[in-house]
Amino acid sequence: MLQASAYAAQSDQSGLAPFTLERRDLRPDDVAIEIDYCGVCHTDIHFVQNDWGMTQYPVVPGHEIVGRVTAVGSNVTGFKAGDVVGVGCMVDSCRHCEPCKEGLEQYCLEGMTPTYNGEDRHDHSITFGGYSEAIVVSDRFVVSIPERLDPAAAAPLLCAGITTYSPLRHYGVKPGDKVGVIGMGGLGHMGIKFARALGAEVTVFTRSEHKVPEARSQGADHVIVSTDEAQMAAAAGAFDFMLDTVPVQHDLNPYLALLRYDGTHILVGLLEPVEPPLQAGNLVLGRRVLAGSLIGGMPETQEVLDFCAEHDIACDVEMLDIRHINEAYERVQSGDVKYRFVIDMATLKGDGR
Amino acid sequence: MLQASAYAAQSDQSGLAPFTLERRDLRPDDVAIEIDYCGVCHTDIHFVQNDWGMTQYPVVPGHEIVGRVTAVGSNVTGFKAGDVVGVGCMVDSCRHCEPCKEGLEQYCLEGMTPTYNGEDRHDHSITFGGYSEAIVVSDRFVVSIPERLDPAAAAPLLCAGITTYSPLRHYGVKPGDKVGVIGMGGLGHMGIKFARALGAEVTVFTRSEHKVPEARSQGADHVIVSTDEAQMAAAAGAFDFMLDTVPVQHDLNPYLALLRYDGTHILVGLLEPVEPPLQAGNLVLGRRVLAGSLIGGMPETQEVLDFCAEHDIACDVEMLDIRHINEAYERVQSGDVKYRFVIDMATLKGDGR
Repeated sequence: MLQASAYAAQSDQSGLAPFTLERRDLRPDDVAIEIDYCGVCHTDIHFVQNDWGMTQYPVVPGHEIVGRVTAVGSNVTGFKAGDVVGVGCMVDSCRHCEPCKEGLEQYCLEGMTPTYNGEDRHDHSITFGGYSEAIVVSDRFVVSIPERLDPAAAAPLLCAGITTYSPLRHYGVKPGDKVGVIGMGGLGHMGIKFARALGAEVTVFTRSEHKVPEARSQGADHVIVSTDEAQMAAAAGAFDFMLDTVPVQHDLNPYLALLRYDGTHILVGLLEPVEPPLQAGNLVLGRRVLAGSLIGGMPETQEVLDFCAEHDIACDVEMLDIRHINEAYERVQSGDVKYRFVIDMATLKGDGR
Repeated sequence: MLQASAYAAQSDQSGLAPFTLERRDLRPDDVAIEIDYCGVCHTDIHFVQNDWGMTQYPVVPGHEIVGRVTAVGSNVTGFKAGDVVGVGCMVDSCRHCEPCKEGLEQYCLEGMTPTYNGEDRHDHSITFGGYSEAIVVSDRFVVSIPERLDPAAAAPLLCAGITTYSPLRHYGVKPGDKVGVIGMGGLGHMGIKFARALGAEVTVFTRSEHKVPEARSQGADHVIVSTDEAQMAAAAGAFDFMLDTVPVQHDLNPYLALLRYDGTHILVGLLEPVEPPLQAGNLVLGRRVLAGSLIGGMPETQEVLDFCAEHDIACDVEMLDIRHINEAYERVQSGDVKYRFVIDMATLKGDGR
C-alpha cells in the first residue's frame, strides 16, 4: 500500500480539505502514476455537495488526470516508468460485454467503474480520484499523452474534451456541416475547437450579448444571442448538428426548430427531466434526432489526445493551487473561469510552486 | 371542372354528410382518378372535429386513396387510363428544395401540400381528399398499385403503411434485430408485418393482457404487457429499435430503458408535448436516440407498395359503407376496428353494393 496526500470532502457541508489515502499494491495489469495535474469538472462539485444523493464520503474527486508513470505491474507492456499518461472518468469495466468489446467501456452493461466514488471490482473499496499525488489504474484505462501537448492543458481533454469530441465523431461531422454549440463553458469551448478542426461552420449560442466577442475569439464563425427571437427565427432549419453542453434545464424546442431535416441535437450534460416538455412535432415533422452521449470509450479517448496533438488544440486553463480549491468551486459555480481550472498537484506538497 | 360526389364535414359539430365538390380541369402533369377505395385514418377524425384548430370547412378527408386512372394531362407519361393507382398524404410540394430533390417531399422546406385541408399551390383552392368519387393529382404524387395487391387492402399502405415502413428502412432494421412495436392499431399492426418481413425479432407492447393472443396472431414473436413491471424489467437493454405508434401522450422513459446502447426510439404518431418529461439520462447514459418520422417520400411510397407485393403483405381491413362513416369514426375512437376501415366508394353512389 502506498500512502498518498489528497484532498477530500468528509460531508456535504465540509468542503475539501487535506486527507491521506492509500493506493493499492500493483496488480499485474496496473500502472502507478504520480499525478502532476488534475482538471476541475463541475461533476466534482456535484459529488462533493452530494447533489445527486449518491456520494460516499470521504470523496476524493478528480477525473481529468495527467501524470508520470512510476511503476507498472508484471503484465503491463504498453507503459513504462517516466511515460506521461492520463486517466479520465473510468478506471474499470466488465471487459466482456458487447460495448466493452467495442471499446465503448462507458456503456458497459455491468456499469463502468468511475474514477472516484465508484466501487473497485476486485477489493470493493471506494475509488478515489485525482485530487491526490498518486493513483493506481489498470492499463486499459490509461492513455498516453502525446509529447506535443502541454500536460496541464491536456488534463481537461480526459473529460471535457472527449465528451464533446465523441458525439461530433460518432455523428460524422464533416467539412461544410453547420454545427451549433450551445453553452460556452469548459465543454462548449472545446466543442467549438473540435467542430472547427473537423471543418464545420460553427455557430455559438449564448444568452448574453456581452459574450459575443469572446465566442468569436474562441473561433466561432457566427454567434447567435439565444434570447433574441429575431436572430433565432432567422436561423430556422439551418443546422446539421447541435452540440448542447448546457448542464441545467432549458427549453430544447427552440433549438430543435433550428435543425434541418435529419438534423441531430446531442445532449452531453443534461441529466435532469427535460422541461419545458419536448414538442414531439419538432422531431416528427423533420425526422430530427435527439440523442445523448456520455464521455467516450478508451480507444476514442486516446484518439482525441492524438487529434489534439495533430491539430494543435488545447483546453484553455487557469492553473490552480489546490489550497484554493473551495474558492475555485465557487468561481466555477458562478461561471467565472476561462475555461477550466487545472490543479497543479505540486501545490499539494505545500511548496506553493 | 368535374362535379364529384363526396362526403364533407361542415363544422366541428356536423359530422360527415353528402357533399358535391369540383375537381379541376387537368393540368399538363395531372392524373384524373376514379376512386374505388379510401382508408379511414385517425387524422381524418382530428380534422373533422377540428382537434388541431386548423380545419378549413367544408373538409373532405381521406388520404389513403386507391382508384383507376380515367384521364391524364398532356405531359403525363407514367400513367394511362385504366391503371390502378394510389394517392397518399401529399399532392404537391415545392419540388426544388433539397428534401424534394431527394424524394423526401414530406419534409419540403416550403411545406408539402396535404391531400386535404391544404392549399393548392397554383389556384389557392383548399384541397379535398379521398372521401369522394374522383380526384385530380399531379403525377409526381401518384403511385402504381402492383397487380398482386388487393386494391382495397392496399389503400392503408398509403399512410399507415408508409409511416411505419419508412423509419424501419431509414434506420436500417435488418435480420436479427430486436424490434419493439408499441401500440397495435392501424399503424402498429403494419409495423409488426414490416419488421418481420425485414427479418427482425418482433416484440409487441400492449397495455392489456387480453390483447396478447391477437398480437401473436399478427406475427409477434413476443408480447410484453407494458403494465407488468416484472416483464418490462426483464427486457431492459434488449431492443435495437422501438417503433412507437401510440397517438396519445405516454411515458417514453420506461421504453427508452429497454433499448440497448445506441438503440433508437421512433415516434410516428405523437404530436403533443412529451409528458411525463423525458429523462435525459435515458439518452445520455446509453447514447440512445429519440427521433421522429413523418410518412415517407414518393419514391419510398412506391417502394412500400412493391415491398408488400413481393412479401405478400396487406393491411387488415374492414370494408365500410360510406353512409356509416360517422358510426365508424366512433368505433375508431374506441379502438374497435381490426385494423383499418376502408370505404368502398361504390357505396357513395348509394347503390349499397
